[in-house]
Amino acid sequence: MSPRAVALGGGHGLHVTLTALRRVTDDVTAVVTVADDGGSSGRLRRELGLLPPGDLRKAMVALASDDEAGAMWSALFQHRFGGTGALAGHAVGNLVLAGLLEQLGDPVAVLREAGRLLGVRGRVLPMCTEPLEIEADVTGLDEDADVPRRIRGQVAIATTPGRVQRIRLHGPGGPGEAPRGCPDAVEAVLGADVVLLGPGSWFTSVLPHLLVPELHDALVRTPARKVVVLNLVPQPGETAGFSPELHLDVLSEHAPRLRVDAVIADAGAVPVPDRLRRAAAALGAEAHLARIAREGTPDRHDPAALASSIRAALHGPADGATGASSRTLSDDSETRGGEAPWR
Amino acid sequence: MSPRAVALGGGHGLHVTLTALRRVTDDVTAVVTVADDGGSSGRLRRELGLLPPGDLRKAMVALASDDEAGAMWSALFQHRFGGTGALAGHAVGNLVLAGLLEQLGDPVAVLREAGRLLGVRGRVLPMCTEPLEIEADVTGLDEDADVPRRIRGQVAIATTPGRVQRIRLHGPGGPGEAPRGCPDAVEAVLGADVVLLGPGSWFTSVLPHLLVPELHDALVRTPARKVVVLNLVPQPGETAGFSPELHLDVLSEHAPRLRVDAVIADAGAVPVPDRLRRAAAALGAEAHLARIAREGTPDRHDPAALASSIRAALHGPADGATGASSRTLSDDSETRGGEAPWR
Repeated sequence: MSPRAVALGGGHGLHVTLTALRRVTDDVTAVVTVADDGGSSGRLRRELGLLPPGDLRKAMVALASDDEAGAMWSALFQHRFGGTGALAGHAVGNLVLAGLLEQLGDPVAVLREAGRLLGVRGRVLPMCTEPLEIEADVTGLDEDADVPRRIRGQVAIATTPGRVQRIRLHGPGGPGEAPRGCPDAVEAVLGADVVLLGPGSWFTSVLPHLLVPELHDALVRTPARKVVVLNLVPQPGETAGFSPELHLDVLSEHAPRLRVDAVIADAGAVPVPDRLRRAAAALGAEAHLARIAREGTPDRHDPAALASSIRAALHGPADGATGASSRTLSDDSETRGGEAPWR
Repeated sequence: MSPRAVALGGGHGLHVTLTALRRVTDDVTAVVTVADDGGSSGRLRRELGLLPPGDLRKAMVALASDDEAGAMWSALFQHRFGGTGALAGHAVGNLVLAGLLEQLGDPVAVLREAGRLLGVRGRVLPMCTEPLEIEADVTGLDEDADVPRRIRGQVAIATTPGRVQRIRLHGPGGPGEAPRGCPDAVEAVLGADVVLLGPGSWFTSVLPHLLVPELHDALVRTPARKVVVLNLVPQPGETAGFSPELHLDVLSEHAPRLRVDAVIADAGAVPVPDRLRRAAAALGAEAHLARIAREGTPDRHDPAALASSIRAALHGPADGATGASSRTLSDDSETRGGEAPWR
């Protein structure tokens, strides 16, 4: 029996989770942020008023078939036009998704059809069926470092030199209009055996899911095991200087009612394992520390190792102390700052 | 046994032939001009240096499967982005073909893969694998109406207020470089049972095929029956004022060695049937006149009627005098200028 897994996120982080998850189960649903306003997606969004397709495309490619047709269409979806003209930088898959969105209207149908083309095993769903905007309170931008300023848009938030304190999501009607969760995504969360949140850009790809009321409620209510996967390194801009624990604190501040079952982190990226364990426990979760970064590239996940950690996290506290986890958890109280990339 | 049919042309005219041909046989190969420099195709060609994809796209859609997937992807290929931005007017299929051309390089492979997506029955091939430029000698542009001027580019020729006398084709190296025929297209012509030329923009979609040396030679040498399908109405610009006979004369001037077996024309569009019969005979062909325009729209073909005429033309002189043809051919010598749209 393949466990029903749902992964919430966006961008490269979600690609990582999905690549690992497909080693664990055949039944994967990706729920993808739709607040991107940069690059090819941002241009399409502004020009055509559509859902930004880039994160959806990346999730589809992560779940695409390995056969010849799947590989060819995936490569086409990822292909970006070169040159110096109007098309330069557009990913072909973004243009196909944009065309299908104009043609079919319903993003769920669009992703189903494009999924057939790529031989996607599982499903890709948008977190909302309309484009959203992220707004953040950011400190450190003024002379008085404690005065928060409102910063709008995913790119602006992801690259702010200030410190992001809190985010809000606006629906297409602007501030005051709560975003509405995609019903299929809500249903997938409620029916899942395991739900994964992260890794990824914390404020702009991971936390937005918690700010969609229907998705938040589904995450609180679902009987699924809830697993948070922490990033390997802080992201310059939105989480510069954030410790692993702070990522969990911020998550909790944005969704105080959410309980989590497991937190997966790379053993080499956690300076003080005991602190992380305490922060995880505050969410109701057990910390699973293991080597999940790729050998020699501490900022990239090893999909096989992440898959092992997900399997371990799936089994819960009873047998959570697997080899990898227990080995690492045994040196809990040791400060390992020398190895850690956190500032 | 399905006859092996090859249709040479471009644009809307080729779409018409293909739509009719698929009623006649399952074995259809479209050979498509690659000299377009206008619209979405022209923009892609200039921006990315690729084969202009529009005519290829239209041919694929004409041969696409009628099933649900074929219909959906065909509709997407034809869908044009709206708005007022950088993408406005681009057909999604053109962008997909452009992406595949950048990715795979070989246009024959590109069209095979895109053909699978659309469930194309038959094959679509470019006449050459590199983009071409058409150059025309056009009179009537100067005070001395007989002085020819060189006009370059498909759009300029198709819309010239002057009279096109002759065209030449340039390969990507410019004047002096003969275009090289796509080997698969040459082979298809040589192995065909029937080859159709026209209808379509005479100078910019039909005659260019005759100026590719390898294709011209294959047309001269092939044992296939060669059928010319004339246009229903003259095209403003490139063939304004051209009689049906003049279309055949011009064809002969561009390919003096080419012999033709049958000429299909709409009975209502031929003012002097006897003249057309004589012009056809000069090419070695029998004229097949029948009502092939759609009822009420004299500028549009009726695919079922055109299919009947193609079937009749296929059978040759022995039984060429089918009902439709003989009925019309019987009033050969009657001048029917009142009904004809020719100026």
